[in-house]
Amino acid sequence: MTHSDSKSAAAPRAVVLLSGGMDSTTTLAVARAEGYACYALTVQYGQRHQAELEAARRVAAAVGVVEHKTTALDLRWIGGSALTADIAVPKDRVADASIPITYVPARNTIMLALALGWAEVLDAHAIFIGVNALDYSGYPDCRPAFIAAFEQLANLATRAGVEGMPLHIHAPLLHMTKAEVIQTGTRLGIDYAMTVTCYDADAEGRACGHCDACQLRRKGFAAAGIADVTRYRGK
Amino acid sequence: MTHSDSKSAAAPRAVVLLSGGMDSTTTLAVARAEGYACYALTVQYGQRHQAELEAARRVAAAVGVVEHKTTALDLRWIGGSALTADIAVPKDRVADASIPITYVPARNTIMLALALGWAEVLDAHAIFIGVNALDYSGYPDCRPAFIAAFEQLANLATRAGVEGMPLHIHAPLLHMTKAEVIQTGTRLGIDYAMTVTCYDADAEGRACGHCDACQLRRKGFAAAGIADVTRYRGK
Repeated sequence: MTHSDSKSAAAPRAVVLLSGGMDSTTTLAVARAEGYACYALTVQYGQRHQAELEAARRVAAAVGVVEHKTTALDLRWIGGSALTADIAVPKDRVADASIPITYVPARNTIMLALALGWAEVLDAHAIFIGVNALDYSGYPDCRPAFIAAFEQLANLATRAGVEGMPLHIHAPLLHMTKAEVIQTGTRLGIDYAMTVTCYDADAEGRACGHCDACQLRRKGFAAAGIADVTRYRGK
Repeated sequence: MTHSDSKSAAAPRAVVLLSGGMDSTTTLAVARAEGYACYALTVQYGQRHQAELEAARRVAAAVGVVEHKTTALDLRWIGGSALTADIAVPKDRVADASIPITYVPARNTIMLALALGWAEVLDAHAIFIGVNALDYSGYPDCRPAFIAAFEQLANLATRAGVEGMPLHIHAPLLHMTKAEVIQTGTRLGIDYAMTVTCYDADAEGRACGHCDACQLRRKGFAAAGIADVTRYRGK
């Protein structure tokens, strides 16, 4: 306890990026378990449905955060991704694609930059993000070197760097398999039925069961030896 | 000419951050003079007036860009700055403040991240930003080390890095005095009357003449030995 004493005698503060998916939910649970007072940030970047946003609200309430902010960021003008532009999401995983069509240009850079701004105002010196290098499906901004580079940038970009109190980017899932993510969250009391992972979930948040994200999630439950609580369509 | 051949046989592409102020306008003029096909990006981040946006439109048309995109990004939820929150802009420059109240948390990080996303989709390997280390007034994200760190991040965050075609962040004003900025732009044919620098410009884009930005600009014209064409209120 050093710098955080000035604003909170109880716990250091952390900004946690929360999409409402399995990984960010587990990350929030880890941050809470490590004793951080958590400020959850959900960035709506032109997704085609609201199911994830509602999942983020459920998760923030269930896990317990000091504050949950949602900010709209229209990335559709950038184009170039099936998640933000008018390109169909592939119905089945393409195993050999180097970078998948669902990759959103610079997404994690943009979301971490927004989290950094809030962290600076909160005097939080921790940012949590649920990126995963093993199951990252070819996204360049989920690699350990990217996280290290952003941490370096963050300490040059802000008062934290100028005033000598370093800020750390925490990516607790970075080296976990999807099964280890599920085991970790389950151990911390997460009910994954409240999370939405599917790229093509319906209005009630029910998953398609076929897309890249659904297949990774399904395999994760199987490998973890934990019953798949995901709500699928048509069941 | 290497990678840009695939999308443009004529000129390499650059994304140029354009606020409509003196520095970003000069930066755009430099990028054009260096032969880039320019894609101007204006980020509206909750400024309290539209004068800068209109200036950006005038500048983009006058200097000549392939495309000018404007994207809204509400940073008011972050708070912590006189430019985005409900804090009065200081009427006179405070010379000894370490980081001024008009500093917007993580602003350049966020704007460069958005530019990076567009650059990736355009297959542009150059991003221009008009930051200035000498007249930077204490903003941490205007320092040379910040620009170098963002370039490193950019090459890890995107396909450019994965596919081995590096992206460069160009900050041509980085080591210029304000006088040198004005001399450079004037030599390249910029009419600075169309730009807006003032933190408190009126609806017609006329400057207050007293704020931090106005005082730096006024001194710049004087030091450059060029007549101040700024439109001030009450004149």
